[in-house]
Amino acid sequence: MLENAVNKKSPFRLDTKRSLAEQVSDRITRLIVDGHLVAGDRLPPEKELADQMGVSRTALREGMRTLEAKGLLQIQPGIGTIVRTVGPHQLVEPLSLYVEVSDGAVSAEEFFAVRAILETEVASLAAASRSDADLDTLRGFMVDMERSVDDVNAFAASDASFHEALAKMTRNPLLSLLVGTLRVLLEEHIRDVVGHIDPVVDVIPYHVDILDAVEAGDPELARKAMERHLAKVVENYYSTVSPKRK
Amino acid sequence: MLENAVNKKSPFRLDTKRSLAEQVSDRITRLIVDGHLVAGDRLPPEKELADQMGVSRTALREGMRTLEAKGLLQIQPGIGTIVRTVGPHQLVEPLSLYVEVSDGAVSAEEFFAVRAILETEVASLAAASRSDADLDTLRGFMVDMERSVDDVNAFAASDASFHEALAKMTRNPLLSLLVGTLRVLLEEHIRDVVGHIDPVVDVIPYHVDILDAVEAGDPELARKAMERHLAKVVENYYSTVSPKRK
Repeated sequence: MLENAVNKKSPFRLDTKRSLAEQVSDRITRLIVDGHLVAGDRLPPEKELADQMGVSRTALREGMRTLEAKGLLQIQPGIGTIVRTVGPHQLVEPLSLYVEVSDGAVSAEEFFAVRAILETEVASLAAASRSDADLDTLRGFMVDMERSVDDVNAFAASDASFHEALAKMTRNPLLSLLVGTLRVLLEEHIRDVVGHIDPVVDVIPYHVDILDAVEAGDPELARKAMERHLAKVVENYYSTVSPKRK
Repeated sequence: MLENAVNKKSPFRLDTKRSLAEQVSDRITRLIVDGHLVAGDRLPPEKELADQMGVSRTALREGMRTLEAKGLLQIQPGIGTIVRTVGPHQLVEPLSLYVEVSDGAVSAEEFFAVRAILETEVASLAAASRSDADLDTLRGFMVDMERSVDDVNAFAASDASFHEALAKMTRNPLLSLLVGTLRVLLEEHIRDVVGHIDPVVDVIPYHVDILDAVEAGDPELARKAMERHLAKVVENYYSTVSPKRK
């Protein structure tokens, strides 16, 4: 892929007259969008790339910063620049910025509310379309959760995997992306809560209900089970970490 | 605000030893997050700002590119750099990048599906909490829609305002943000469709039903009315612009 990208008729070469830094970021974005550069690819060294594009290293570096800010590149000084996968991390930052900038206008309660809207639908869709392989995956994460009730981090991770697997079962990548993004933003809250409750009583049974409803292929039952689980999550949150609602 | 920001003990001044461009973007982000810089503020000229921060103009420019990429600053060469509001535009780009990069994995149908999940809930919440002022606003946009049936752009704009007002009525800014973001991403599709259908038959009556249900304060009725509207939008889309489903 990259072999092809650094030959003489370099696809990095620029041809218009706009701001050079912008051209750099547009061109590299285009290469990623078109699949000429894929996640994990390493870009040529700065000097070589600047030569290929016919720009100064300063303009190159400015353009690369733009791409780093957008989450498309990971710049590791002294090591190299790697193309990143596209996923929740690109949305997490603008969303958390939004939350911070809006005068604290977005409360944890509002986050949980949006999560509930999306994830009750996820549970319902998953129940409607589950395959045997999906069910095996879900059961696996359920076992992981049961095994890690004494380890907050491992428990939170298998809990996350359970919800992620459920979202993937909808076969709607945009829905998975949004669910994943909210989860990353709520991760700290969730870990705090898990440290204050009894997973065996307050978390596991709710996931068992979700799993059972999905196995039964009953969308309405799955929706209700998810609703009860998320209502309990909010209750746990307000009774432990943040006793006062806004 | 900015007066205060450019005095001798400048809050722009850096104090750590990390990459200078990163420090520049972190510091300015912090000033925005803390409210020292607000939307519409103009930053000091490049040279002055570089002096205040104690960095080269190159490092400053790199840092500013990062902030521009994140949608926090608008750089207008020769004019100045303005602090932007935080809102849907910051999510639109990462989301549309995601859509493009995921191998065309996100179809219009999947977009519409996520929109339906969020907006049926919006309609229900709006019906549950509508104030008299909210209803006046909604009725106003309804009138605008009825008046602009012969002008595709004006019609699409008043349609957008109607849905935006409805989302605001939920008083959940995160929910409004996501609905607004999806709408921006679907805007082109929606405008294309409006040019191919009869708004008087295919759009207006559905909005009248939503408005009536919200006025009646009936969440379930409002949800159903929104569901019917969005199902019709998808039907219109596939019968005009994009006859083939994926």
